[in-house]
Amino acid sequence: MSLPAPSSPETALIDALAAIVGTRHVLTEPQAMAPHLVEWRGLYRGTARAVVRPGSTAEVAAVMRLASERRVPVVPQGGNTGLVGGQIPFGDDQIVLSLGRLDRLRDVDPVTDTIVAEAGVTLQRLREAADGVDRLFPLSIAAEGSCTIGGNLATNAGGTAVLAYGNARDLVLGLEVVLADGRIWNGLGRLRKDNTGYDLKHLFVGSEGTLGVITAAVLKLFPKPRASATAFVAVPDPASAMRILERARGEAGGALTTFELMMRRAVEFVLSHGTGVRDPLADTAPWYVLIELTGQDEAALAERMEAILGAAIEAGEATDAALAASLDQARAFWRIRDLMSEVQAHEGGSIKHDIAVPLAAMPAFLDEAIAAVEALVPGCRPAAFGHAGDGNIHFNVSQPPGADKAAYIAGWEAMNAIVHAIATRLGGSISAEHGIGILKRDLLPEMKDPVGLDLMRTLKASLDPLGILNPGKVL
Amino acid sequence: MSLPAPSSPETALIDALAAIVGTRHVLTEPQAMAPHLVEWRGLYRGTARAVVRPGSTAEVAAVMRLASERRVPVVPQGGNTGLVGGQIPFGDDQIVLSLGRLDRLRDVDPVTDTIVAEAGVTLQRLREAADGVDRLFPLSIAAEGSCTIGGNLATNAGGTAVLAYGNARDLVLGLEVVLADGRIWNGLGRLRKDNTGYDLKHLFVGSEGTLGVITAAVLKLFPKPRASATAFVAVPDPASAMRILERARGEAGGALTTFELMMRRAVEFVLSHGTGVRDPLADTAPWYVLIELTGQDEAALAERMEAILGAAIEAGEATDAALAASLDQARAFWRIRDLMSEVQAHEGGSIKHDIAVPLAAMPAFLDEAIAAVEALVPGCRPAAFGHAGDGNIHFNVSQPPGADKAAYIAGWEAMNAIVHAIATRLGGSISAEHGIGILKRDLLPEMKDPVGLDLMRTLKASLDPLGILNPGKVL
Repeated sequence: MSLPAPSSPETALIDALAAIVGTRHVLTEPQAMAPHLVEWRGLYRGTARAVVRPGSTAEVAAVMRLASERRVPVVPQGGNTGLVGGQIPFGDDQIVLSLGRLDRLRDVDPVTDTIVAEAGVTLQRLREAADGVDRLFPLSIAAEGSCTIGGNLATNAGGTAVLAYGNARDLVLGLEVVLADGRIWNGLGRLRKDNTGYDLKHLFVGSEGTLGVITAAVLKLFPKPRASATAFVAVPDPASAMRILERARGEAGGALTTFELMMRRAVEFVLSHGTGVRDPLADTAPWYVLIELTGQDEAALAERMEAILGAAIEAGEATDAALAASLDQARAFWRIRDLMSEVQAHEGGSIKHDIAVPLAAMPAFLDEAIAAVEALVPGCRPAAFGHAGDGNIHFNVSQPPGADKAAYIAGWEAMNAIVHAIATRLGGSISAEHGIGILKRDLLPEMKDPVGLDLMRTLKASLDPLGILNPGKVL
Repeated sequence: MSLPAPSSPETALIDALAAIVGTRHVLTEPQAMAPHLVEWRGLYRGTARAVVRPGSTAEVAAVMRLASERRVPVVPQGGNTGLVGGQIPFGDDQIVLSLGRLDRLRDVDPVTDTIVAEAGVTLQRLREAADGVDRLFPLSIAAEGSCTIGGNLATNAGGTAVLAYGNARDLVLGLEVVLADGRIWNGLGRLRKDNTGYDLKHLFVGSEGTLGVITAAVLKLFPKPRASATAFVAVPDPASAMRILERARGEAGGALTTFELMMRRAVEFVLSHGTGVRDPLADTAPWYVLIELTGQDEAALAERMEAILGAAIEAGEATDAALAASLDQARAFWRIRDLMSEVQAHEGGSIKHDIAVPLAAMPAFLDEAIAAVEALVPGCRPAAFGHAGDGNIHFNVSQPPGADKAAYIAGWEAMNAIVHAIATRLGGSISAEHGIGILKRDLLPEMKDPVGLDLMRTLKASLDPLGILNPGKVL
């Protein structure tokens, strides 16, 4: 491999990167870089000097040492599926550090119930590897075919199994991280308990690549549930849904895996635009809940679900319910929920919010937020849905039918401001699971405790004193 | 209240502290200070300039501002039940910051399933408050009558319910922390999901008072299990026990709450010295396991437990088992486990280890460690017990009968070195749940990743640049 002699600082950098990862893993041509520069929905279109694709932790470390010496800003990137622009480079001086080639499953151990995966392993492959040893890796999000575990951890991904298994953060036992200056922290412990000093892993999980580059992780595996009970339930209002949640927690305890709340309108969008879906219930209702219990005993779960639903109907908290009689029927219920996000594109512009509130405040939030956006944009169509069991709602609002999409989307920030103010007043969060990235960076100072924000800046300054790791993101 | 005019810098500091918390809450008399200076087993006897008992977060903040201005070292202290000396002051220039008067339960909310408690609330009171609203706060350790939640969080306490509910760390939703310079971070969020920036709470949990002073916390409540199944099981060896663990996880999933492994000798010590205990099984066995399943359905749990035990006996993993037929019988099984630590004092000197290893390595660790200590001190009596379900064993070793206690205890560090080396080689930890404090501080550099240790020092320097928070502990 013969390289041209360095003719400029620009070339010198590219040469130095190529010397680390190999020429064909330094992309500089616009066409080659393109998939790494554009956010998948087209919301963000970035620019970069190069895309670098290291093949090992040692190469990541060498790239970071070089970047540190030359003060080159580095944007770590996994599957490029993030929703807040955190993975997109914005500047001709920036390099994208694409972790896709770090794709080894270093170890799968069904006795210790752990899996050691490199950052670039896709979530789907990870789940399949767990399945291969009769275990469950419970993280489950819509993008699982292309998102990578490194990105999942960097953004502390959520999804539909958080209620029983926690966020991505809760599924990690150990991490390997390359620091801003290229040092490698080997924190790949497999211990369930270890009180020997500060918990460093939680610092990097959810830091969106601004404090270090996660290169590998030890993840927890769980026994595979052998049985499930799934119900699609009609409820009159969110307050009733939250009472059913309390009931389900009391009756089923840890077996309650999923509790998703959906507005009728969100279900209608799926029925209109999804293929192979049908309404699970004969009559319509203003709200629905998808409940799933999982465990080891089919009959016991069914009995428990029937007890929950029977009591809820008797108390007037539910007006109707369908209990899946087969795995196919359960999948049909899930399909409605799974399609909910993508079908909204068929209804014109959609202004999105990723809200969490304390469980007790969920009904108040929905009442107030729906009234507020309808007052702001008459005719707009709230189509909220989400992980109500965790207090997390994707409060998405579709444009009025026939309205101008661009004009509606131009009101994004104004609507956000109103909805976020309601969430914040109720003790809530403006980013329950998607992170901050660049989309919500400028909103942080308004809603974070100022001392907490100062602490974040202190941590950033001490771990990345040159400010080369994903600059302009989060802070 | 008239105070003498400041006559020396010493008096001036005491006066300034008294002006913040009131004269009667600044203890300087040896007798008044004594309970705060001595570790409860007498292992550590410290010295201090004063013990300060603030009554509010604002007073804690004012004390830390003063300490910061005058560079006075501060040792935060809860119920003074720690096992590694972290809460003991060592220096006439140090002040003890006793959090016992911060004892308000600020809020108990069974809908959001949260409780907001100040640092000085005892674990027992917290559990009772949860119980009062028909909820469970699952943290359970032997010292719960006197330990406080602030100390539990500062040390990331473990206990007997970690398998199902996690460590103290996993039970926290939000924190209020006074920083070294007296600023107050209000991070008392009640959200199950919040991805707005770095996770600061995990930095303070488990930092043993070296990064900040936890003054209050938002804690998770859980549905109260209505039913349980408890079994006392005889097993031939640790490998069999770990196979039963795998079986129990597969059969019972999240219902498996407790899986404690005990050497026959540890049981014998209880039978010899405990009151009102008897052997649950007719024949003796070299090892025992205490298994508990909890949930909402008595019959289903009993059936599941019988399935686990039946299969284990058939596979030769268990040689006998007693399934508790009543709550009283379950309590009798638990009493054996609960007394295990304290009765060891009746058998002379005991050299202790708080080990965690990856689950798969548990049998190898026990085999090797028992052989190694028996070779080191012929006639010594390993009496190991602990939370095998989490990979955590209290590998305690009693002196040979009739040996000189002081001479035996003088070999503490030599035995630790051998046992810790085995644990470390197997990917384990030398402090699974008790922390580092001063007891294990000097061992850290030998077993931590050097970059990780550097990161800890970086964090310490950035959050406590003057080094006034619990100096000499952990690092």
